[in-house]
Amino acid sequence: MARIVMKFGGTSVANLERIRAVAAFVRREVDAGHSVAVVVSAMAGETNRLVELCKEAGEPAPALDARNVEYDAIVASGEQVTSGLLALVMQNLGYRARSWHGWQIPLKTDNAHGKARIAEIDETAIGEAMDNGEIAIVAGFQGIAPDGRISTLGRGGSDTSAVALAAAVSAARCDIYTDVDGVYTTDPRLTKHARRISKISYEEMLEMASLGAKVLQTRSVEMAMAFKVPVRVLSSFDPPDAPGPGTLICDEDDIVEQNIVSTVTPDFDEATVTILAVPDEPGRAASIFNALAEANINIDMIVQSASRETGFANISFTTKEGDIERAVDLLKSEQPKIGFKALQSDKNVAKVSVIGLGMKSHAGVAATMFRTLAEKGINIQNISTSEIKISVLINADAAEYAVRVLHEAYGLDAPNHAAQN
Amino acid sequence: MARIVMKFGGTSVANLERIRAVAAFVRREVDAGHSVAVVVSAMAGETNRLVELCKEAGEPAPALDARNVEYDAIVASGEQVTSGLLALVMQNLGYRARSWHGWQIPLKTDNAHGKARIAEIDETAIGEAMDNGEIAIVAGFQGIAPDGRISTLGRGGSDTSAVALAAAVSAARCDIYTDVDGVYTTDPRLTKHARRISKISYEEMLEMASLGAKVLQTRSVEMAMAFKVPVRVLSSFDPPDAPGPGTLICDEDDIVEQNIVSTVTPDFDEATVTILAVPDEPGRAASIFNALAEANINIDMIVQSASRETGFANISFTTKEGDIERAVDLLKSEQPKIGFKALQSDKNVAKVSVIGLGMKSHAGVAATMFRTLAEKGINIQNISTSEIKISVLINADAAEYAVRVLHEAYGLDAPNHAAQN
Repeated sequence: MARIVMKFGGTSVANLERIRAVAAFVRREVDAGHSVAVVVSAMAGETNRLVELCKEAGEPAPALDARNVEYDAIVASGEQVTSGLLALVMQNLGYRARSWHGWQIPLKTDNAHGKARIAEIDETAIGEAMDNGEIAIVAGFQGIAPDGRISTLGRGGSDTSAVALAAAVSAARCDIYTDVDGVYTTDPRLTKHARRISKISYEEMLEMASLGAKVLQTRSVEMAMAFKVPVRVLSSFDPPDAPGPGTLICDEDDIVEQNIVSTVTPDFDEATVTILAVPDEPGRAASIFNALAEANINIDMIVQSASRETGFANISFTTKEGDIERAVDLLKSEQPKIGFKALQSDKNVAKVSVIGLGMKSHAGVAATMFRTLAEKGINIQNISTSEIKISVLINADAAEYAVRVLHEAYGLDAPNHAAQN
Repeated sequence: MARIVMKFGGTSVANLERIRAVAAFVRREVDAGHSVAVVVSAMAGETNRLVELCKEAGEPAPALDARNVEYDAIVASGEQVTSGLLALVMQNLGYRARSWHGWQIPLKTDNAHGKARIAEIDETAIGEAMDNGEIAIVAGFQGIAPDGRISTLGRGGSDTSAVALAAAVSAARCDIYTDVDGVYTTDPRLTKHARRISKISYEEMLEMASLGAKVLQTRSVEMAMAFKVPVRVLSSFDPPDAPGPGTLICDEDDIVEQNIVSTVTPDFDEATVTILAVPDEPGRAASIFNALAEANINIDMIVQSASRETGFANISFTTKEGDIERAVDLLKSEQPKIGFKALQSDKNVAKVSVIGLGMKSHAGVAATMFRTLAEKGINIQNISTSEIKISVLINADAAEYAVRVLHEAYGLDAPNHAAQN
């Protein structure tokens, strides 16, 4: 009799009809003889409603730390309601079930209210309850901080709650039910050749999450990797008596036949800034990126190239579309100090990345990418790489086409791809 | 620097505009140098929304005790949200404030989920915070049960939370802000001569609460009386910089000049059942009232009178209008066992009560009541009395008129009445 953790997000518990569907998935695992904990998010829309109330109450904003403690106390109530409702529904189906709030477990976090990190989960009471056949319905996204107050883990934190709980109770598996039926080789809206992946490694999933793929939160993948928790992504919109196999996120050693490239991942939320003719002296680049960091603007791909004028360089970087105006305004105000000549910005760019553990051992992955794009006349503006990822920045209008040709070039379209996983 | 507890109900915190008005009342007390705790209810409508969700989730109903634990966990979230929002608003006004959930104080209750009774309040941490100038914003209506789960005190429980907290922190006063500006000599909608009472005793207030006057919950008055907490009823719709004096509910010793009759209180939620020709034998009445008690039907005024037939009696009692159909159906089904001849019921009745501590020492209060009603041709169907209350059951159509003539007969209309309190 294995311990299993299941997690259902906001759209999966949007109303009582959906909560009853969730109950059907849960009873299936319980009837199979498992000891089950279920982590739930707030009902879709509820967190936004509560955040909106906090914003209204918090105007004009006071010191952020004092705010966040109350913000947490308010917003955590959403998960509290869902966990109680699912417990009631399970009880009505004849099962023993109870809700667990973060402080009741306790799931201890640090004091970073609003974006707390999990410090420790006491699995004694909840593990014992599970093994006694009582379904543990856990309010996700929340814990208790050292100050004795409720803390929250930040948006999407319920994934992290679920994986951390799975690690704490040594669960055989953490099943994340969501509104897609697994992880795909690329966004299925871009090509009909996209395929669900049966197994993918933590490392690849982490790269995907970092690139903004919405399936799982980065921190939950990091935690799964650290504690070797097998995580399965499944759809809560499948029939509960015959859910699809989903995608298993696991250790690379558990994936017998590893693809060279597993996914082609587009990211349209990109914008680029080019600073022209910066004096080519030590400290100039540092002053630019210090200023941006202090303003809390995340930057990504950076390229420095020689300017036409001797003694000057051009510097390009990318950032999120939402940050581009702030970045441009900031740099203009710093122009006298930095001493550049001109500034260009462009929102019409996209980042396309290929991710694959196989890159570690296979040469030529980058060459295939550059050759394929060149053959199709797609110009690369910028490149960045990690051990298992190559990203290129291209014109946004060409991004969908680039995804399709790369998907084909790496053999992800091929019918034998499905068989090999 | 006195400790003060303030309490605001659902309509007083219905939205952020109202919560900001509440904040103005709170800052007034803090600026006056008091150590303040504020007990809040859920925003108007929120508790009903949560109860509705519980009902939907709880169909068909399982064992009540298991249900109530989750019901409490769900419904208590309403007060959690309000307390956090008021804390945010106070912080924005430049005050130090924090929310306290029941389990954080802790406010300990018994295990009777859904209608728990307060067992103990640890005032150490919250009292210290108050004295350090931090406004304690307490989620009303909730506590923590011996099982470690959230409990609720039943509808209107926030009044009880406030009075109990005031007792625990030895507050100089518990101010209950509501949507009326005090306790009146009678319902102001019935006569323009109704007057706000400056001071009223716990005993009188308890009789009024038991009669269904909506100002305060019975249990909160009982607790105030037991712990000698001075309770003031005020309006949260008054201007915060100049609130009315309200009504002080206090020990009778603190009321210098006691009225013989303080209030005339009507109760329209009454119905009467008359059982005709019950065999006049020991045990017959008991079997009737046992059956009603087992069905959880509360009965009030009981009269047994001789029937025209020798060896038989007629038995009348009153109950709430909402229970009358159940009572009649139940008695009909028990007719063979009880052995009565016929059954009559009437919803068109009302109870009018006069309440006054002075009755203890003054004769003739009942005589005045009966004479006044007789002079106006109002027929009395039933009478019940306590040490400080006389109630009569009359035709509902005559009730408003009866209230007006009694209000005048006991001198409550008189202009010198206001001065004497």
